[in-house]
Amino acid sequence: MVVCLPDTQDGTPDIPIYLSRVGVTGVKKLLSLKRKEKRPIILVPTFDAFVDLPSDQKGTHMSRTPEAISEVVDEVATNSSIGVEEICADIVRKMLEKHEYAKRVEVNMRSEYMFMRESPVTRKPSQEMGILIANAVGKCDDDGNISIRKSIGAEVIGMTVCPCAQESVREVNKNNLLEFLDEETCEKVLENVTFASHNQRGIGTVLIEVPENQTVDGEKIIEIIESSMSSPVCELLKRPDENAVVMNAHENPVFVEDCVRAMNEKIIKEFSYLPDDTKITTRQENQESIHRHNAFAEKVSTLGALKEELNLK
Amino acid sequence: MVVCLPDTQDGTPDIPIYLSRVGVTGVKKLLSLKRKEKRPIILVPTFDAFVDLPSDQKGTHMSRTPEAISEVVDEVATNSSIGVEEICADIVRKMLEKHEYAKRVEVNMRSEYMFMRESPVTRKPSQEMGILIANAVGKCDDDGNISIRKSIGAEVIGMTVCPCAQESVREVNKNNLLEFLDEETCEKVLENVTFASHNQRGIGTVLIEVPENQTVDGEKIIEIIESSMSSPVCELLKRPDENAVVMNAHENPVFVEDCVRAMNEKIIKEFSYLPDDTKITTRQENQESIHRHNAFAEKVSTLGALKEELNLK
Amino acid sequence: MVVCLPDTQDGTPDIPIYLSRVGVTGVKKLLSLKRKEKRPIILVPTFDAFVDLPSDQKGTHMSRTPEAISEVVDEVATNSSIGVEEICADIVRKMLEKHEYAKRVEVNMRSEYMFMRESPVTRKPSQEMGILIANAVGKCDDDGNISIRKSIGAEVIGMTVCPCAQESVREVNKNNLLEFLDEETCEKVLENVTFASHNQRGIGTVLIEVPENQTVDGEKIIEIIESSMSSPVCELLKRPDENAVVMNAHENPVFVEDCVRAMNEKIIKEFSYLPDDTKITTRQENQESIHRHNAFAEKVSTLGALKEELNLK
Amino acid sequence: MVVCLPDTQDGTPDIPIYLSRVGVTGVKKLLSLKRKEKRPIILVPTFDAFVDLPSDQKGTHMSRTPEAISEVVDEVATNSSIGVEEICADIVRKMLEKHEYAKRVEVNMRSEYMFMRESPVTRKPSQEMGILIANAVGKCDDDGNISIRKSIGAEVIGMTVCPCAQESVREVNKNNLLEFLDEETCEKVLENVTFASHNQRGIGTVLIEVPENQTVDGEKIIEIIESSMSSPVCELLKRPDENAVVMNAHENPVFVEDCVRAMNEKIIKEFSYLPDDTKITTRQENQESIHRHNAFAEKVSTLGALKEELNLK
Repeated sequence: MVVCLPDTQDGTPDIPIYLSRVGVTGVKKLLSLKRKEKRPIILVPTFDAFVDLPSDQKGTHMSRTPEAISEVVDEVATNSSIGVEEICADIVRKMLEKHEYAKRVEVNMRSEYMFMRESPVTRKPSQEMGILIANAVGKCDDDGNISIRKSIGAEVIGMTVCPCAQESVREVNKNNLLEFLDEETCEKVLENVTFASHNQRGIGTVLIEVPENQTVDGEKIIEIIESSMSSPVCELLKRPDENAVVMNAHENPVFVEDCVRAMNEKIIKEFSYLPDDTKITTRQENQESIHRHNAFAEKVSTLGALKEELNLK
Repeated sequence: MVVCLPDTQDGTPDIPIYLSRVGVTGVKKLLSLKRKEKRPIILVPTFDAFVDLPSDQKGTHMSRTPEAISEVVDEVATNSSIGVEEICADIVRKMLEKHEYAKRVEVNMRSEYMFMRESPVTRKPSQEMGILIANAVGKCDDDGNISIRKSIGAEVIGMTVCPCAQESVREVNKNNLLEFLDEETCEKVLENVTFASHNQRGIGTVLIEVPENQTVDGEKIIEIIESSMSSPVCELLKRPDENAVVMNAHENPVFVEDCVRAMNEKIIKEFSYLPDDTKITTRQENQESIHRHNAFAEKVSTLGALKEELNLK
Repeated sequence: MVVCLPDTQDGTPDIPIYLSRVGVTGVKKLLSLKRKEKRPIILVPTFDAFVDLPSDQKGTHMSRTPEAISEVVDEVATNSSIGVEEICADIVRKMLEKHEYAKRVEVNMRSEYMFMRESPVTRKPSQEMGILIANAVGKCDDDGNISIRKSIGAEVIGMTVCPCAQESVREVNKNNLLEFLDEETCEKVLENVTFASHNQRGIGTVLIEVPENQTVDGEKIIEIIESSMSSPVCELLKRPDENAVVMNAHENPVFVEDCVRAMNEKIIKEFSYLPDDTKITTRQENQESIHRHNAFAEKVSTLGALKEELNLK
Repeated sequence: MVVCLPDTQDGTPDIPIYLSRVGVTGVKKLLSLKRKEKRPIILVPTFDAFVDLPSDQKGTHMSRTPEAISEVVDEVATNSSIGVEEICADIVRKMLEKHEYAKRVEVNMRSEYMFMRESPVTRKPSQEMGILIANAVGKCDDDGNISIRKSIGAEVIGMTVCPCAQESVREVNKNNLLEFLDEETCEKVLENVTFASHNQRGIGTVLIEVPENQTVDGEKIIEIIESSMSSPVCELLKRPDENAVVMNAHENPVFVEDCVRAMNEKIIKEFSYLPDDTKITTRQENQESIHRHNAFAEKVSTLGALKEELNLK
């Protein structure tokens, strides 16, 4: 005999207040995106997904949210060209269908992402891992019109060399060299020496809004983050590679502030075609080798405001 | 001989853009707050602290930020009445002094916090650990006037019982009981039985803005969070205590949505004296025992808006 | 002009002592294992790999270790039948070749692993994520003979219901029911009621040694872990599914101790063909819903000793 | 009316096998150890504690374990001289009393620990945080005689500079300098230059067994770990301090292997009075600035074996 199970969620709450976000966090999926003439992109994303909840509804039908994620993950598996931010947008659309009371739906995604690199001298290929991030927020107005804003981004590890400590070392060394070298020879020596500094793992983050009918390439974002630090890191470095990484990095010392500014400059160049109201978030966090704590810099802006700051409009 | 070390940070950046937040993350301190006629409050907070940076300055003088934190931690050690949000505000003030170019300073703090509880039946005392959170944001206008907004909050673990699963179990059990009980006896049985449901660790979070010249008691926030779940948890439960916790929790089943709504109702009652524009953030995340993923609900509002929603104005 | 870079590692150490383990931790790879007539198994493993180091060698040639991992990951990509423990063994072999001074090599691997399940009533399919673990330890004797011991295992989340709390609730409920029911009716009621208890996420872990020329199926291990708890968890449960999970779990309450004992009993049955000296590690950790702390049980034994304990020899 | 609650744990298990470790993990306490004429040591330890369980007992009386931890934490609060490893031993003794069936009890502890340092040039004092670790294992023979082995240790962050990368940079620089310097001047220049290398946060770990009636000072262990890396780190470094840290570190480049060997040499000197069978564990893990992965070295030995390796016996 079938017992009719009660629908507790559809009741009226004792305390009738609206909730901003109700949903699930930490839903993990395996996702294989087929691509034409390339091997598939494989992701193991973790999703967080939320609806808003009116003041007269006790609870969401929570299971509809992982169900929406599952259905989209199944559908996109065979789509050759979809971006991760579009996957988030698809989940938003499906959630708006399933949760008829929702006026705002938000989906966030994070996934490890493998990309290939070669070591700088011996050209050894190696798998490198970054984090791909994406999100989408959908709003439904009173007439049922849906508008969605979505973003794509990445988090990548690189190496940063401190410019300030390096200049200090140079000054102290120079002072000693001048005791037995004339000024001219000393200057020439200084030009040919790679001075020490502290250096460390840094984590660069970029998140870029993607307008409807536009695409933003995640690989390009990863390149921007890597090239804004002193050097990319690499999982496999033979001795000449290690030497090249260390020497190149020390020729390009950067503060966290420099990394963030460089990312923004590169984003303007690479994505100048995006509209002025495109939201841009950039962040750098260095795991300082001389401290237990980290150094941090961040800029949140729009493409238009950025162009104005640099007089590019 | 003393070498004059260069001040690289004071240079002009190649890419002249303003940065929203520059600073340090993960600065850990031990802090012992003396109190009159009570034993001291001991905290091991982790601080994140940021200034903004104008477009014409290459870098912040990073070391001034942990220095400001250190100095405040030393000063407050003997102050009998200071709240954690006021510690954050003090750091903000000191950072505004040290970073003369900064117009916006932000300090965030998180610390484990020990509070005492008794088990419900055998009255065994036990140390319970929650997380105390606080922050302060200071702004300096062009005339040098400083305004600071600060907040205090907590993150506490409790137990939540799902109302929906419990009602389902009750319906299925009732259906079987009616095969050999008459309706009246069955109803009486149902009233005297504690039906199963899934239950789990939930984490409740509250953050409340604290206006100038006002205080908000962190212990009260912890009580609000604990009492908004099905039951508090306890590190030491003898058998009768465990029974009481389980039975009480199952008499008070709540969704994540209910927890958030209950926190808001209690906050209005407890802190009705705060101004209408006081920002209130409340959140509940349940580590579902039937899923790998978590259930989540959140409300971000102001005290005034909350009172309006509940017709208390 | 090519500069000859120095080989610092090959020097003699100032402090001539032998080191047990030298290597790398946290090497992440993407791995797609092809299978006949099935879709490939996709893993994103993290490897730790170590060699020992004689007292007369300053350092290992560190880069050879991630190189060995890379080469094996590339080679196995097209191998239809290889197990993860065999991948670890292959890396061990390659490392013994590359580090000619090493007498002991150890490789450990952990990876998220997707497996499919159906919800118990509505039969909704869903992706479930567990952790696959594997390791291999190779030893090289003075004649250059290599022996390798390898293991495979898994870590899986499930749901556990406390038997003790459930019995307590039953006793208290029974006591109240007896005030208006006769003993016989009461007993019948008790048989038809699903009594409350505390329940929570539990994490079960199994690691089984795999002898040369034998295989141990990772999916079987996952099934053993899941079936040793009160119920498997599921990412997608519609209301009748949720009811079934909760009711089934409460019909099968287990302590952490019970989980570990059940895993061992199932391992003996499933893998009775393995030799007596096969090392078996089993562990259960419950994220107690009534405490902030976890409950834990563990047994480390051999298959032979287990059989003796249960008089199966 | 009092209901007699059942003691499910005392039942006989269906599967009669012995369990190696049953207990709790993640029990957090605040602990203030009074000291003569010094301010108290404040710890926020997390305890894991286990008993073994005979094959004929269904479950442990789990609550007795956090109860034992609580009681010891309360007792030692006023003891001026107790070490953390002795706290673990006290908990072991109390657990052996409370769990009359247990033959082996194990207690592990980890706590953040604050120690004071001064920056190297400007002598600014700053709080530094390390991790203090301790454990105790007690065994009870058939006659009821108890023997306990206990250990104390620490985990400390420092800075490591790679010797190999530094030599490579030196060689490449030297090659360029020789194009315009004679050999003698070049050598003099090389002696006066601090060459770049990659450097990073390293984490050193030491664990030393403490025999009955002996003590091992945790602060000494922290000093050994710090001095075995290229340089200690410091939370507050003004510009001359930062310069000194970077230059000193680069004059003392070390591999992970060197760190571990140095720790062992210092341990032999500092703790030569301990018996030969004293177990010594040492470990170094570097968060490489040129890779995503870490470098790792470890030695597990006894004091006697160490002395033999270095011909000190």
